[in-house]
Amino acid sequence: MSGVEPFDAVDVIRAQRDRTGLSEDALRWMVDAYTREYVTDAQMSAFAMAVLLNGMERSEIRVLTDAMIATGERMSFAGLGKTTVDKHSTGGVGDKITLPLAPLVASFGVAVPQLSGRGLGHTGGTLDKLESIPGWRAALSNDEMSAQLRDVGAVICAAGSGLAPADKRLYALRDVTGTVEAVPLIASSIMSKKIAEGTASLVLDVKVGSGAFMHDLGKARELAQTMVALGADSGVSTTALITDMDTPLGRAVGNANEVRESVEVLAGGGPADVVELTVALAREMLTLAGRPDVDVEAALRDGRAMDVWRAMIRAQDGDPDAALPTPRETHTVTAAASGTLTRLDAWDVGIAAWRLGAGRARPQDDVAHAAGVQLHVKPGDTVVAGQPIATLGADDASRIPRALEALENAWTIAAPERSRHDNRPLAARSIVLERITA
Amino acid sequence: MSGVEPFDAVDVIRAQRDRTGLSEDALRWMVDAYTREYVTDAQMSAFAMAVLLNGMERSEIRVLTDAMIATGERMSFAGLGKTTVDKHSTGGVGDKITLPLAPLVASFGVAVPQLSGRGLGHTGGTLDKLESIPGWRAALSNDEMSAQLRDVGAVICAAGSGLAPADKRLYALRDVTGTVEAVPLIASSIMSKKIAEGTASLVLDVKVGSGAFMHDLGKARELAQTMVALGADSGVSTTALITDMDTPLGRAVGNANEVRESVEVLAGGGPADVVELTVALAREMLTLAGRPDVDVEAALRDGRAMDVWRAMIRAQDGDPDAALPTPRETHTVTAAASGTLTRLDAWDVGIAAWRLGAGRARPQDDVAHAAGVQLHVKPGDTVVAGQPIATLGADDASRIPRALEALENAWTIAAPERSRHDNRPLAARSIVLERITA
Repeated sequence: MSGVEPFDAVDVIRAQRDRTGLSEDALRWMVDAYTREYVTDAQMSAFAMAVLLNGMERSEIRVLTDAMIATGERMSFAGLGKTTVDKHSTGGVGDKITLPLAPLVASFGVAVPQLSGRGLGHTGGTLDKLESIPGWRAALSNDEMSAQLRDVGAVICAAGSGLAPADKRLYALRDVTGTVEAVPLIASSIMSKKIAEGTASLVLDVKVGSGAFMHDLGKARELAQTMVALGADSGVSTTALITDMDTPLGRAVGNANEVRESVEVLAGGGPADVVELTVALAREMLTLAGRPDVDVEAALRDGRAMDVWRAMIRAQDGDPDAALPTPRETHTVTAAASGTLTRLDAWDVGIAAWRLGAGRARPQDDVAHAAGVQLHVKPGDTVVAGQPIATLGADDASRIPRALEALENAWTIAAPERSRHDNRPLAARSIVLERITA
Repeated sequence: MSGVEPFDAVDVIRAQRDRTGLSEDALRWMVDAYTREYVTDAQMSAFAMAVLLNGMERSEIRVLTDAMIATGERMSFAGLGKTTVDKHSTGGVGDKITLPLAPLVASFGVAVPQLSGRGLGHTGGTLDKLESIPGWRAALSNDEMSAQLRDVGAVICAAGSGLAPADKRLYALRDVTGTVEAVPLIASSIMSKKIAEGTASLVLDVKVGSGAFMHDLGKARELAQTMVALGADSGVSTTALITDMDTPLGRAVGNANEVRESVEVLAGGGPADVVELTVALAREMLTLAGRPDVDVEAALRDGRAMDVWRAMIRAQDGDPDAALPTPRETHTVTAAASGTLTRLDAWDVGIAAWRLGAGRARPQDDVAHAAGVQLHVKPGDTVVAGQPIATLGADDASRIPRALEALENAWTIAAPERSRHDNRPLAARSIVLERITA
């Protein structure tokens, strides 16, 4: 009944709802018409819920991804003279890995164009973390980005609004309509931007656990396989690691404190789990870039990765030697009993950091760069009653009580007798759970 | 995160999406907050799609219905001194049954308060049909309605906007988001208005077939059972008939021509199927009203029902003797072959009538009262090549070609040899397929 429009939104929704067959043209039209605001938010949210509950065929997810790419511009690093490799994480608590990873990989002569986002909800955003460095700026023109990739090798900057604009509108809609957790929608959202960005290869860090969007290994595997296949179909060599997000990564959750922890890793130190994941992802990226045999850890030990980090921060007007902000108010929580810390929940810690001001409730909010949680113990550690478990930091003391509420059941300390038995699997556990290749 | 609101729409959507349990308070809040426009159309359409795909428990449908009633006023006919009984049809092609039925039942001293609607899409609305009568008005005050029920016994009028306003907004949303066909939403939509209307008892005509919203007997039965249970829970004695809507009811599909056919029935004539269904529904209504043994057909034969019809039309300023409008342009379609008409599709005929102007595409459109389809044969009839099958009428000749397109495959004429065999089940078939009681 629409006159010039070739499809009717209700017919497209019904086809997805009843799985009676969604033609390629109909799906492309739906995405395009939504971007043009002909298809309404209400229609797209009904469609998104039908995708979440009924799923989509691989071929349909490919068309959906293509359709989202087609709503915007495509970048190209073909003239750079180096191969490019990017990393994307589905988001976790304390996930600062991009910060040490990009300079580490670039230190081997590979270009790392890392278009990143800001955080919304309980997981932080890479740009929010870097913005705690005085002077550092996230917005680069395409020319600035190319020049920095050529001269420094690594760039972490804001994705321009020109890449897959359909995704931007759809993501905001999914966030308020309970349609975030749909594998076809997550996969097409991530891959449309990465493919439009023009990287030659891509490593995906698909998180699973209490602090991740995916709580179930089967779903995480499905998402990883879907994205790896989408990458392969579009000529982007893609590998995925499925990694544990039941407990926060490292000991710092926030913004400035995560930068501090990243610098420790670049200096050859830092928490074991952050180092493990940084090295694992660097190996995957360097393998895709044709450098499978390099000694990744050496570049952390001997300062090569740190040199790239300092050049990368300076290139974006940041001062790598400047003092990072610290919170005005702190509060330390101590252990109520002695034993072994068998659980430290990522979701709870993420919510606490968010309530302290490290994250934002609405896209237009500012984050408090100094706010966050500093953990003093990790699962597997032995604790004694009264020992500090976590220190909460905020610019405003009134934020601390609600953050403490979030931590009420955030950890489990097992009595010494029990913990001797429970201890072993914890200590033996690797962060990388599975590796998915095309 | 909403401050004063006790629930978050995304949590409510997720609970329905994952069927993790929807509390009564959460469901009531969702309906109320949607009516207050705090919950957006996009959020409600995602919720509606999750209801369509996941279903709801009976207890949840009852809460949903109660919540919709609670958004508006409740009427009462308690002071009338007569028992009240209402009928609701889920909508079909050529379904003019309310017109002869209300006066027929009222002729036995029972009050029939028939709040009706206008048509949208391929099925017509009772008010649109009656508005072809010069002078007749659909809008009555509550006092006028009570007075007419007392004096005449039957009233067919527009439902005031005060009854279940949540349903009005939700129905318009479902219409454009592919979420019409959800049993919990259809049942709560119909029953919220009927319960709020305050009738003592109710007979439901649940249509199934190509021209109905329900194409499947199992779904129609589920809907009928759900509504009968909702009625019982709310103290409204409710019975449902599941009736055939594979072929149009009667020979007239439109507005003025349907009034004409209704008057034929009230005069003791009319098509056999219209008479059969009118009598069957009247018996159900009179049984619920405590008059199970009356001779329903006698009131059609001896003019008692016609007397109430004339009084009912006059009470609403209509002239029962006035000439009804006739179409300016007509076009007759003839049989291409000889044989037996084994199929005459309700959906196709409904679409043809709609395209001729008898229905509306948008709520704000007017209908053409004279437009419609007049059928010359019914399934089971023998036809010879060249014999008229249907006459299309419109006020504007340009509407006829697209209506003809809708009729291209609307009927099947079986060759004489085959039809002798196929004929029997057609002739033996009753319109009433099942009867559902509490």
